[in-house]
Amino acid sequence: MHHSHHTVSFAQDASALPVPPALPRLRVGLIGLGTVGGGTYRVLQRNRALIAARTGRDIAVTKVAARNRARAQALVADDADVAVVEDAFALAAHPDIDVVVEAIGGTTVARELVLCAIAHGKHVVTANKALLAEHGEAIFAAAQAQGVVVGYEGAVAVSIPIIKALREGLTANRIEWVAGIINGTTNFILSEMRSKGVSFADALADAQARGFAEADPAFDVEGVDAAHKITLLAANAFGVPVRFDAVHVEGIHTLEQADVGFAERLGYRVKLLGLAKRQGLGLELRVHPTLLADDHLLAQVHGSMNAVLVKSDAAGLTMYYGAGAGAEQTASAVIADLVDVARVAGQAQHDRVPHLAFQPQAVVPLPVAPMADLVCRHYLRLDVADVQQTAARALATLGEAGVQVERMERFTHADGDGASALVVLTLPATQACIAAVAARLERLPGVRGSVRQLRLETLH
Amino acid sequence: MHHSHHTVSFAQDASALPVPPALPRLRVGLIGLGTVGGGTYRVLQRNRALIAARTGRDIAVTKVAARNRARAQALVADDADVAVVEDAFALAAHPDIDVVVEAIGGTTVARELVLCAIAHGKHVVTANKALLAEHGEAIFAAAQAQGVVVGYEGAVAVSIPIIKALREGLTANRIEWVAGIINGTTNFILSEMRSKGVSFADALADAQARGFAEADPAFDVEGVDAAHKITLLAANAFGVPVRFDAVHVEGIHTLEQADVGFAERLGYRVKLLGLAKRQGLGLELRVHPTLLADDHLLAQVHGSMNAVLVKSDAAGLTMYYGAGAGAEQTASAVIADLVDVARVAGQAQHDRVPHLAFQPQAVVPLPVAPMADLVCRHYLRLDVADVQQTAARALATLGEAGVQVERMERFTHADGDGASALVVLTLPATQACIAAVAARLERLPGVRGSVRQLRLETLH
Repeated sequence: MHHSHHTVSFAQDASALPVPPALPRLRVGLIGLGTVGGGTYRVLQRNRALIAARTGRDIAVTKVAARNRARAQALVADDADVAVVEDAFALAAHPDIDVVVEAIGGTTVARELVLCAIAHGKHVVTANKALLAEHGEAIFAAAQAQGVVVGYEGAVAVSIPIIKALREGLTANRIEWVAGIINGTTNFILSEMRSKGVSFADALADAQARGFAEADPAFDVEGVDAAHKITLLAANAFGVPVRFDAVHVEGIHTLEQADVGFAERLGYRVKLLGLAKRQGLGLELRVHPTLLADDHLLAQVHGSMNAVLVKSDAAGLTMYYGAGAGAEQTASAVIADLVDVARVAGQAQHDRVPHLAFQPQAVVPLPVAPMADLVCRHYLRLDVADVQQTAARALATLGEAGVQVERMERFTHADGDGASALVVLTLPATQACIAAVAARLERLPGVRGSVRQLRLETLH
Repeated sequence: MHHSHHTVSFAQDASALPVPPALPRLRVGLIGLGTVGGGTYRVLQRNRALIAARTGRDIAVTKVAARNRARAQALVADDADVAVVEDAFALAAHPDIDVVVEAIGGTTVARELVLCAIAHGKHVVTANKALLAEHGEAIFAAAQAQGVVVGYEGAVAVSIPIIKALREGLTANRIEWVAGIINGTTNFILSEMRSKGVSFADALADAQARGFAEADPAFDVEGVDAAHKITLLAANAFGVPVRFDAVHVEGIHTLEQADVGFAERLGYRVKLLGLAKRQGLGLELRVHPTLLADDHLLAQVHGSMNAVLVKSDAAGLTMYYGAGAGAEQTASAVIADLVDVARVAGQAQHDRVPHLAFQPQAVVPLPVAPMADLVCRHYLRLDVADVQQTAARALATLGEAGVQVERMERFTHADGDGASALVVLTLPATQACIAAVAARLERLPGVRGSVRQLRLETLH
């Protein structure tokens, strides 16, 4: 006998359990009905009774502001409680709104709207990482002064409750480092480059065709989006202010297929990682393509999925995995924030978790270590004319510079003239040292063009 | 230049930031100083200032009750604030205690202590999954009546904040299923059986020697511990009462190396999974060894690590990974619960997240589907005398029973007389159907002994 998979009504389904009218209501003003706003509205409508059964609150969108008023009107047509308004600023300041969801994106109008809502005593929920990475200090300070909450779980690795994990789940821990695949577009491209052997350009075109990359992909492929997110993760992990400009950022737009392929044959995969580590008296904050051993858990994160690995003193290694983009995936985080807000809304005194995981007076900047001092393992690729002779010269040069070689292997380029390449994996060395030795290697007879460099991390 | 990795003082370190005396103090009574209690005490001592900087609270153990009073006295010797007391029940009822941490284990005295603490208006934190899986209903009801919180993040996959993820992070979602590797001992044994090709008995002995298994391993290897945990996960995912007796439990103690090896060669790994799924009008609740494709993320969870995969309607697939045991790993969860308690302690009215993720009046039992009705894919191994002939007969028998074969492969047993085995992977079929056809297969001429059966899950 085979089971039929029919649709059923559970007690927690909307049909079986209408929202009791007596429940306290959280009145949500939703600004923007694009991907994030539309998804949030849809999930709230669909799961409203379920969410009420969980939280004891009726989380209700009561006002919507959207550029395209006709489309907004069409979307909320079956909900008589929702008013579509023209003026987003009037919504942000409206006395009948408890919390404002900012879902318009960008950093200019969004910033003004969020500050306007805060000034009017509204809680705010946003998934806008650019906004918070660039203007977080002003926004959190204003929220603190007004005694309101700014929720932003959706700003990092949307579907994964990583902000909550860092600042509540791991609150007992001294966090050592955070390493994440936190941009779905680049992870999709890297997965395609590896599994199909295609160039960056072809993988990007494929990602665009399949909706995993924007028409203008610079923000993603140059690492800026990942840098926004590692900024927020670092602030929550270490209690430092949001400092986007302190992040060292390299994207994957200059990555060559040859290096993805050679790395694969050496047992490594290339991932765009955001990394925030305690180092000496300060922090490392960086985003760059990184070689990871192919049996590392982060190397198993394929396509547009995201994952964040955290090393902390008591819990040890923990990892959090999920979709890094998507309308309902982001809505999941936005609504979780709304529920957290609902627990404190209307209370004169409340004790929500602080915005950056630490009490405001304990948020202290730490120096960000210069990249020249960064110590890690490196992958170097030299295109060479005479492999045997050049290998000997390269080894001597590396040895003179004090760079220890763990492994050296020769490859033949798949494309073009079948030229030879020499790939070196080093033991840990400073960035400064590697830069200097790369310049010397490029001057060796038999070495063609520039030496390609990638960093390699173990992350255990 | 190589970086020296010296110890440093951060602003959040205890040395640099003493706990300000004006902070509100949460007075913790700790009962039991074994692995969990000792770890909790140690992490709280080490990170007390850091935790205060995060939470704005001084989480302080002020009383300790332990069987071995001399050892307890030695442990807390350098902390004048801590009183070691004889009588755990007096501690649980003491007016100068805000929250009781139950860390003695077991289900008899622990239950009485927890109920005593609740009756005296104390919040409770425990990592005791057996206690909550078996007596959770009574304990949560008592806590609800008294308006106190029972925190139990450490009861499932200790280091991973999975209870928080389910009931707060994913609160917007209708959860479809939860699947977890939630017992470190069995995952260690299964990892050893796969990577070293050893028998269950040898892997168990190794686990015992290395401290990953108890002297009496029955609780772990027979699946009871995983069943306790899936009970708690299911309650939080679906809003059902804690129903340990409803879980179908199979352990790994009868698993043969041959099947681990054959599965491996077919591209699968055997994992002990706890599974809770919506099914028809009810739920599936089961713990059993399961074949997972070797490129599945859960198949990459090695050794004593744990991971929980959750499928929900908005967030999609999310996974949570970390250590499943350990003193400080459990302490991380216990202290996170203490911090959550600290945010509501002393408030006449509070609005903590409900114990089972749903408001008490919305916690409704759902029928648990009988195993006979379970539909999934199956692995069947037949030891056979004449492979060719028996394969034909077996295929005919399976066909007559309506069981679709996806793949059939012959193997030779590595040990003993080099006998042949025939392994069949089926398409989805009911458990009842598979049981019936296995009985028929065993009666076929040429089939020796019993047909080994394992379930296979895709989990996408």
